[in-house]
Amino acid sequence: MSVKELGIRARNTQPFLATVTTEDKNRALLKIADALEENMPAILEANLLDLANGRENGLNAGLLDRLMLDENRIKGIADGVRQVAALEDACGKTVYEHEKDNGLLIKKVTVPIGVIGIIYEARPNVTPDAAALCLKSGNAVILRGGKEAIHSNTALAETMRGALAAAGFPKDVIQLVEDTSRSSASEMMTLNGYLDCLIPRGGKGLIQAVVQQSTVPVIETGSGNCHIYVDESADLDMAARIIFNAKTQRISVCNACESLVIHSAVIKEALPKIKAALDEKAVEIRGDARARAVCSDILPATEEDYYTEYLDYIISVKTVDSLDEAIAHINGHSTGHSEAIITKNEANAARFLQCIDSSSVYVNASTRFTDGGEFGLGAEIGISTQKLHARGPMGLAALTSTKYLIYGNGQIR
Amino acid sequence: MSVKELGIRARNTQPFLATVTTEDKNRALLKIADALEENMPAILEANLLDLANGRENGLNAGLLDRLMLDENRIKGIADGVRQVAALEDACGKTVYEHEKDNGLLIKKVTVPIGVIGIIYEARPNVTPDAAALCLKSGNAVILRGGKEAIHSNTALAETMRGALAAAGFPKDVIQLVEDTSRSSASEMMTLNGYLDCLIPRGGKGLIQAVVQQSTVPVIETGSGNCHIYVDESADLDMAARIIFNAKTQRISVCNACESLVIHSAVIKEALPKIKAALDEKAVEIRGDARARAVCSDILPATEEDYYTEYLDYIISVKTVDSLDEAIAHINGHSTGHSEAIITKNEANAARFLQCIDSSSVYVNASTRFTDGGEFGLGAEIGISTQKLHARGPMGLAALTSTKYLIYGNGQIR
Repeated sequence: MSVKELGIRARNTQPFLATVTTEDKNRALLKIADALEENMPAILEANLLDLANGRENGLNAGLLDRLMLDENRIKGIADGVRQVAALEDACGKTVYEHEKDNGLLIKKVTVPIGVIGIIYEARPNVTPDAAALCLKSGNAVILRGGKEAIHSNTALAETMRGALAAAGFPKDVIQLVEDTSRSSASEMMTLNGYLDCLIPRGGKGLIQAVVQQSTVPVIETGSGNCHIYVDESADLDMAARIIFNAKTQRISVCNACESLVIHSAVIKEALPKIKAALDEKAVEIRGDARARAVCSDILPATEEDYYTEYLDYIISVKTVDSLDEAIAHINGHSTGHSEAIITKNEANAARFLQCIDSSSVYVNASTRFTDGGEFGLGAEIGISTQKLHARGPMGLAALTSTKYLIYGNGQIR
Repeated sequence: MSVKELGIRARNTQPFLATVTTEDKNRALLKIADALEENMPAILEANLLDLANGRENGLNAGLLDRLMLDENRIKGIADGVRQVAALEDACGKTVYEHEKDNGLLIKKVTVPIGVIGIIYEARPNVTPDAAALCLKSGNAVILRGGKEAIHSNTALAETMRGALAAAGFPKDVIQLVEDTSRSSASEMMTLNGYLDCLIPRGGKGLIQAVVQQSTVPVIETGSGNCHIYVDESADLDMAARIIFNAKTQRISVCNACESLVIHSAVIKEALPKIKAALDEKAVEIRGDARARAVCSDILPATEEDYYTEYLDYIISVKTVDSLDEAIAHINGHSTGHSEAIITKNEANAARFLQCIDSSSVYVNASTRFTDGGEFGLGAEIGISTQKLHARGPMGLAALTSTKYLIYGNGQIR
C-alpha cells in the first residue's frame, strides 16, 4: 500500500476520532496493553528475525541492544501503555472563553491534531509508545520505523490493530508503513493534506533530513548539546557533583551534559575538582588554552568540539570572563535543549534563566531532569528543540491543537 | 545588506529583548505611533512614488487601493500601534508549575519566539502593524514586503527604527529587507538558525510558495474557502440573513462565505429565500443539479467551484441528504478556516462543532466574526489555517513560545 493510501485511510478515521470518548480511548489502550503481553511469543519471534538480520548486517552492540526485545521489555512497554491510559485526557479542555456584547459566545477548546506521522530508526519500542500517546490524544498515527526493525514493528502494529478492532475502533487509527525504503520517508514528508504533523525521532541525520525536506509541518526533536556553566560564585563541590551526574549517569541521552563553561576567576579551583570526579569514569576532557593551563593533561578543544553532541565519555571545556560571555557562548553553540548554571548569586541565576535561549534552563541542578516524566507530564513523545507549538518535553498536550467554537443565535457583522 | 546579515543583526538584539520590560516596550510603541504621524509628509511622498510606479506598471484599481496611504490611513495605523501598546503583555506568564519530591521546582513560562520573518505583498500597512505586534511580544522582526510598496515600506521602517533608537532600543529589533527580488524571499525561507518562524501574509500563491520552500518553521495563514451549512431544521430567514452577511458584507476577506451546503429536505424552501437575499447584491450562484432544479436561473457548479475561494460576488451551492454528508463535503473542500451551521437542532449543532476540522466553527452566526478583535484577542498578525502552534486568529499569544525554568539546590538524577 502506498503512503498516500495510508494517509487516506487515516483521514477516514477522523469522524470516529472526532467524537470518541475518553473512556473508549482508555478501554482501547488497555486492550492494546493486554494484547502486547498475550502476543508476546509472536512478537519475540519477529524480533529474533530482526536481530539475526542485524547481526548478519554487522550492526554494532549498541544498535543491537536498542533493537532487542525480551519478555521484560515487552512487559515494560505494556505497562507504559497502561500508564498512558491512566493519564488525564488533554482534549476537550476549554482554554479561552469570550462573550461579546451581541451575545456571541466564543470558546477555544483543545482538540486532536488529526493525523500524526512518526519517522524513527531501529527502536521497536517507539512503535507502541508513540501509538499509545497518539491514540490517547485522539490522533491517528502513521508509523514509519527503520528497516532493521521491520519484523518487530509489523508484529507490534498488527497486535495493536487487532486490539483496536476488538475495542470497536477502526484499525487504521494505527498504521505502519511497511515499505522501509527512502522513498516512503520522502512520501511522508510531503503528504500535505493527509498528515497534519510529522515528528522525527532519532539521530541528528534523520532529524535534519526531515526538517530540510518536509513540506508537512515538523516538530524538531532530540539533539542536545547541553551546557553547564560554573559561575564565579558557584559551590564548586555541588558543581562537580552535578557535572558528574549530568555527564556520566547515562551518556547516550539527549539531556546529558556535553560542554562545560567555567568562569576564569574560579577555573583554577573548579577544574581539578571536576576532573577528579570525571576521572572516576575516565571521561576525556577537551579544553581551551586556559583550561589546559590549569590541568595540563587534558586535550585541546577545537571550535568543532564546542558544537559536538558526543553521546560518549567526552566533554569540552570553555573558559569565560563573565556571565554574559558564558550566555553568548552557550546561545551560539547549544542546540536549544537544556543548559544549567551553578551559582550562589541570585541575580546571575535570574539573568541566565532569562537570556539562555533553550527549552529547559536550570539553576543548580543536573540537566538530566529534562524528561516528560520528571517534569510531571507523564510519558513523552520526544523533546522539542524548536520554539513553535511545543518546546521541551512533549506530553499529551503537545499532541493537541485548538479550535474556536462560536455559539450564536443569528448574529451578523 | 544580505538577508543573512539582517539575521545576524536580529540575533544581536536578543540579549536586549530577553530582559526588556513591558513598560519599555510600551514606551517604544508609543514613540513609534507618534513618529509615524510626525513623519507623515515623508511617508506620503514615498507612497506617491509607489503609486506612480504602480500605475505605470498597470496595477489594477484594487491593488492600487491596497497600496495607497493617506493621512487618515496613517493616523489609523498609528492608533493601531497605540492599541497594541495598551494590550496586556503575553510574555512572562507562568503556564505550568510542578514541584518534585526532591525539591526541584519546574515552571513553564511564556517567552518571545525570538526572530520572526514576515513575507507579504503590496500592503504597506502590514509593515507597522506586524512590527508593532512583534515588538510588543518581545520579538525581533525581519519584514519583506512586495516590491510595489518598497518606497512606502522603507519610509515606514526608517521612521520606526528612528523611534526605537530614541526609546533606547537597538534599531535592529525592526528590519526591512530592501532587496525585493525573489532570491531575498528564498533566502529568508532557509534562514534556519537566524529566523525562528516565518509568517506569510498574502494570497494563496505566496502562502503555498512559502509552505513548500521553507525549511524555517512556517505558520500558514489566510486562505478561506468558508462554508455555511443550512440544516434540515434551520430557521430559513436566519439562514438567508446570515448568508447574505457572510457573503456580501466584505467580499475580499478570508472569512467571507464562499460555499453553501443545503439539506435536500429544505432546499426547495431555502434556496429561493437565500437567492432573493443575494440578488440584492447580484451575487452569482453556481449550484449542483438539485439546486438548479429548484432555481433554474442559477449556473452549474463544477467540482473545481467547490474548492474555489472566489473573493468575489460568486457563491457555490451543494445539496446533501444528511448532516454527515455535509460534514464530509466541507472537510473535503474547505481550507480549514471558518464554517457555520444554521440549525435549531442541538445535537446536530454539537456534531457539526465536533466533526468539522476548521479553526473556527459556528452555530447560527456569520463566519465574518473570525477576527482577532472580534474574538477578544486584540490586533492579529493573521489567521492560522494550520493546526500546529496557533490556529485561527493569532493575537500576541501566538507570537510567544515557552521555556521551562528549573530551580534546584544541587539535585542530581
